[in-house]
Amino acid sequence: MESLHLQSIGTGGVALVVALIFYAKVKSAPEGNEAMARIARYIREGSMAFLTTEYKVLAAYAVVVFGLLAVSLGPLAGAWFLAGAVLSLVAGFIGMKAATFANVRTAEAARAKGKADALVMALDGGSVMGLCVAGLGLIGMGVLYMLYRNDHEHLGTMIHAFAVGASSIALFARIGGGIYTKAADVGADIAGKVVENIPEDDPRNPGVIADNVGDNVGDTAGMGADIYESYVAAMVAAMALGLTLPQEQLQRVADTTDLERLRMLSVALPLLLATIGLMISIVGIFITRALKNMPPATVLRLALILPPFLVTGAAAAALPSFGFKLGATITLAAGAFGGAAVGLITDYYTSMKPIRAVAEASLTGAGTNVIRGLAVGLESTVLPLIVLCGVGAVSNHYLGLYGIALAAVGMLAGTAIVMTVDTYGPIADNAGGISEMSGLGKEVREITDELDAVGNTTAAVGKGFAIGSAVLTVIALFAAFNMEVNRARGVGHELVLQLTDSNVLMGVLFGAVLPCIVGASTMTAVGRAAGAIVVEIKRQFDEIPGLREGKEGVEPQPKAIVDIATSAALREMLFPGAVAVLAPVVVGFVAGPTVLAGTLAGALAVGATLSLVMANGGGAWDNAKKFIEKGGLPGHKKGSDAHKAAVVGDTVGDPFKDTSGPGIAILIKVMSVVSLLIAPLVANR
Amino acid sequence: MESLHLQSIGTGGVALVVALIFYAKVKSAPEGNEAMARIARYIREGSMAFLTTEYKVLAAYAVVVFGLLAVSLGPLAGAWFLAGAVLSLVAGFIGMKAATFANVRTAEAARAKGKADALVMALDGGSVMGLCVAGLGLIGMGVLYMLYRNDHEHLGTMIHAFAVGASSIALFARIGGGIYTKAADVGADIAGKVVENIPEDDPRNPGVIADNVGDNVGDTAGMGADIYESYVAAMVAAMALGLTLPQEQLQRVADTTDLERLRMLSVALPLLLATIGLMISIVGIFITRALKNMPPATVLRLALILPPFLVTGAAAAALPSFGFKLGATITLAAGAFGGAAVGLITDYYTSMKPIRAVAEASLTGAGTNVIRGLAVGLESTVLPLIVLCGVGAVSNHYLGLYGIALAAVGMLAGTAIVMTVDTYGPIADNAGGISEMSGLGKEVREITDELDAVGNTTAAVGKGFAIGSAVLTVIALFAAFNMEVNRARGVGHELVLQLTDSNVLMGVLFGAVLPCIVGASTMTAVGRAAGAIVVEIKRQFDEIPGLREGKEGVEPQPKAIVDIATSAALREMLFPGAVAVLAPVVVGFVAGPTVLAGTLAGALAVGATLSLVMANGGGAWDNAKKFIEKGGLPGHKKGSDAHKAAVVGDTVGDPFKDTSGPGIAILIKVMSVVSLLIAPLVANR
Repeated sequence: MESLHLQSIGTGGVALVVALIFYAKVKSAPEGNEAMARIARYIREGSMAFLTTEYKVLAAYAVVVFGLLAVSLGPLAGAWFLAGAVLSLVAGFIGMKAATFANVRTAEAARAKGKADALVMALDGGSVMGLCVAGLGLIGMGVLYMLYRNDHEHLGTMIHAFAVGASSIALFARIGGGIYTKAADVGADIAGKVVENIPEDDPRNPGVIADNVGDNVGDTAGMGADIYESYVAAMVAAMALGLTLPQEQLQRVADTTDLERLRMLSVALPLLLATIGLMISIVGIFITRALKNMPPATVLRLALILPPFLVTGAAAAALPSFGFKLGATITLAAGAFGGAAVGLITDYYTSMKPIRAVAEASLTGAGTNVIRGLAVGLESTVLPLIVLCGVGAVSNHYLGLYGIALAAVGMLAGTAIVMTVDTYGPIADNAGGISEMSGLGKEVREITDELDAVGNTTAAVGKGFAIGSAVLTVIALFAAFNMEVNRARGVGHELVLQLTDSNVLMGVLFGAVLPCIVGASTMTAVGRAAGAIVVEIKRQFDEIPGLREGKEGVEPQPKAIVDIATSAALREMLFPGAVAVLAPVVVGFVAGPTVLAGTLAGALAVGATLSLVMANGGGAWDNAKKFIEKGGLPGHKKGSDAHKAAVVGDTVGDPFKDTSGPGIAILIKVMSVVSLLIAPLVANR
Repeated sequence: MESLHLQSIGTGGVALVVALIFYAKVKSAPEGNEAMARIARYIREGSMAFLTTEYKVLAAYAVVVFGLLAVSLGPLAGAWFLAGAVLSLVAGFIGMKAATFANVRTAEAARAKGKADALVMALDGGSVMGLCVAGLGLIGMGVLYMLYRNDHEHLGTMIHAFAVGASSIALFARIGGGIYTKAADVGADIAGKVVENIPEDDPRNPGVIADNVGDNVGDTAGMGADIYESYVAAMVAAMALGLTLPQEQLQRVADTTDLERLRMLSVALPLLLATIGLMISIVGIFITRALKNMPPATVLRLALILPPFLVTGAAAAALPSFGFKLGATITLAAGAFGGAAVGLITDYYTSMKPIRAVAEASLTGAGTNVIRGLAVGLESTVLPLIVLCGVGAVSNHYLGLYGIALAAVGMLAGTAIVMTVDTYGPIADNAGGISEMSGLGKEVREITDELDAVGNTTAAVGKGFAIGSAVLTVIALFAAFNMEVNRARGVGHELVLQLTDSNVLMGVLFGAVLPCIVGASTMTAVGRAAGAIVVEIKRQFDEIPGLREGKEGVEPQPKAIVDIATSAALREMLFPGAVAVLAPVVVGFVAGPTVLAGTLAGALAVGATLSLVMANGGGAWDNAKKFIEKGGLPGHKKGSDAHKAAVVGDTVGDPFKDTSGPGIAILIKVMSVVSLLIAPLVANR
């Protein structure tokens, strides 16, 4: 336990080395013919252009926040805020770059070698993101632990600042990337189908490149930053509670009555679990690769289901020797299995009976399709939140509020492998787009289609998992906020957060509207940006001679679309981003910690349900459309009225599942992390 | 103050007498030609058939609950539960019967006399419901006050039981009626437009009668029961708090330090305000009638905006003489004006700039129309809830939690006139349908169309107002629940509802899913029932010779559709109804009052936002479609692609605004009322 920081940093380092090896391996693979290479270059350049432009905006934001933190909490806090942000950016940058190499190479592997090698290529590309996210997160937390483990006064502030850095990047990357990806997707779709009547991924459509760029900046870079944030925030919440909870609550964690030692163990435990989880994930990634000849759907489901068993087994073996009680292992297991359960429930709602119901509702028109999809989304909140209540109740039974934080860490212990599978999805999606655009044969397209379809399921599972872990993390952060306020107010002046206090209740109502604001603004942002893209695509078809006819040698100008999507996404992300960061600050300083606590609770209740409705409803519509396209409704194939109705649902679901839903989930995380950081400053308001 | 019960009962009696005069006046007016009379009879018989069948289901429910209450809280509590239920049924029965006389007579007045007389006829028909709801509610509360005002021990239990009776009827009437009205509407629409390609309200379509029945059972009887419940529950919450709050909190209500007198005054005040409000409303109804030559939109907006001024003025004059402090008047005013503000904000979101945006989004297809409408719905939650936070903060500042309950009473003081205007809407809607079906001329149809369009706006305002008052009432009931639990637990054992308590937080998460369950189940219920209606309509067109061709003398069989809609609505209402009633009972008895309190808070946060999203989003879609039909988008008239896209949004909005949204609002009220009633039984779990 004394050398835990070395083990954490070492494990993180191993993860990075493995990531770099995969990176090199992917990059050295053949990228196919010239057309493929050119399309892939467009996508890569567009993705990188978005990221670098976004980084400039974020740099301005970071400088301002650094200044504010340096003044209010000291320059070191500002520096750790920057560290949290920069590590997130580095993980996102390397991970996305690898994905933009892997996409075309996956298509080429499908062409030259077959399904198994294409699967491995997409997984290798995804594992760079997975390993960087977990590796850099663990290194950051390990260094913080190393430097401040004997200085509890500063450890709290520094980990909070580190988490705010991670949250800030996640917020803007997720919302900006989410707006980009769906504006490009919806814009290219509408321009292609409604305006010009050409098929999806047609090479004449200049919006198709931007659509593929969107997969990278939204589903890869945005998702990476999001999970990195959850990973860090869960550890920070548990550590913060370890630092501040009273002895009687920590007593259940380990076999000692020495409060100092109890705190030390409680602060170390999340880091220890994350270290174990990363070790297992690295091994898991290699096992998954070795299974490449099994059906892709089986391989990827196994990759998501096995980690809870392995992590629980390893923890059961390791924890008692450090003096932790059985409750620690049980809590960890509750989180790990709870996360898998939420993922599987999401899988059910987005791929099984419910999508058949949505598809059948398309037979009576788009209206009934949309109603049914929304109903599926609403229904899909029930079991996941009940599972999370169960996880919370079990964890709380054994280890109190600290247990809930630990369950969140347990849920996220397999982050490296979950993120690998998550990133696999957009790589496979891109590979399909590249095959289509560069005119590869039907067999290649069949392979990439299968890989892509599996990716849709894993994406849904990943989103359920992300929201589930976010809910537990937010509860833990909320408890940490309360303890931090109490610490600042001193013994005898603890905060009374009576639920029937009018201040708390007004806070709950105010908090309830915040997810609605983010939902509304991101949805209209997608609509506006997509509209601008449609206009530009139409202009190109009208003004570039020969484009509409597909004349040999005539090419569209994808860069113009990429530029429009980039600037629109960055402009549109500012308002919802500002709401997330400023709402807790304004409420905290103006109305005080009681109202702020109510605000967090109201935002949690609405945010948890609304983001699940949107993520799962969106997934159900998407897959209902695909179900019809694959002949699920005999007599109603692609192009039929039922299919057209299903396309409407899919269009509604696009911003739901990839922009607003994830945006709302990140909102509640950011609000909690920011509240925790400013807790000492607003404690006596 | 000593004779307050007499004044309340007397004012209620006057309201009933006025209602009966209007009833007789409406019934004695000419009902037009034979075709009109026949159609009106179909509608009336269908409406009454639904109500009587529903009453049988409710009777079974009432017997069971009566038995449970008689055993657990005594036979008198059971009797007052029945009284609360029966008064609601009587108000709904008389009010709806008047509406089904007024609809055809409004059409006839429009034909024979013109707009002003048609407006008055629809208003007179509506005022029967408005006056019965408020009159019977006030009489019931007045009698309770008369019998138990000096027996505080029993007063609490009896008013809680009375409120549960009112709530139960509201729950089933609102959900059952909501499913009926939208199943018939959507079913008739789909069968007419998609399957048979005939215009709306075409006399050949057998579903049109059921659609018009739906307006009566959903928007008239369902809405009446809903508002009756709010009216009663707001008074009950204030009285319950007056009975249980500690002296230091009641101290601010009146100028006395005698706790007994303070309680007496606090219990009496809500009844006094409701009495003043009803007096003013009766006068207001006559003033509104006198303005009949002004534009209908102006008349009805005035009817909604004037009561807050009059009620506040009257209260400011009367309250000080009874020893109430200024805070009582301010709190009342905050509620009354807050309610009007919420109504006007709803009006904005469902009739002004936002609907133009939804209409314009239809230009790029149904998908963007739906996205935009959802965004409008989400955005429309923000200002109303912030206004309610403001009302809560002001009320709490002056009178504490009791003040919040009083604000709810103030918001509902004008119930009689608001309900009159609300019921005007479906009467005007029916009048339009009858004009169309019986082939009255274009000028008549123009008048009924204008009256109907105004009715859409007032319906939206009424819904906003209903949800706003529900939110305040729920907060007050929640506080009353807490005080009641504390009273049962005894001094020194008060409930600690610390927001960071894991039990409370798990309750919040569990409560958050309940509105989702009700939303999902009511939406799918509408879809299922509508599907059955489509099948039957298609059967009639296929099997009745000459119907499709509109052959002279060939008639559809509307009764078959009415029967299908009736049995489907009654069957489908059971599950969501059971969730609302049983969820607090199960949570309370199994998990205890702490988890139950969290559940109520979680349901409030999600329920308040989701019901506003649905009600306002639905209104925006409906009016965006009408905006296009009236030529709001030059070049895109009825039948264009843009109009078709708007019809999709309208179809989605139908169950949103008239089934699920109101169903969710009633869910949170029922849960709170039931929790308050069972508080003593679960206090020590």
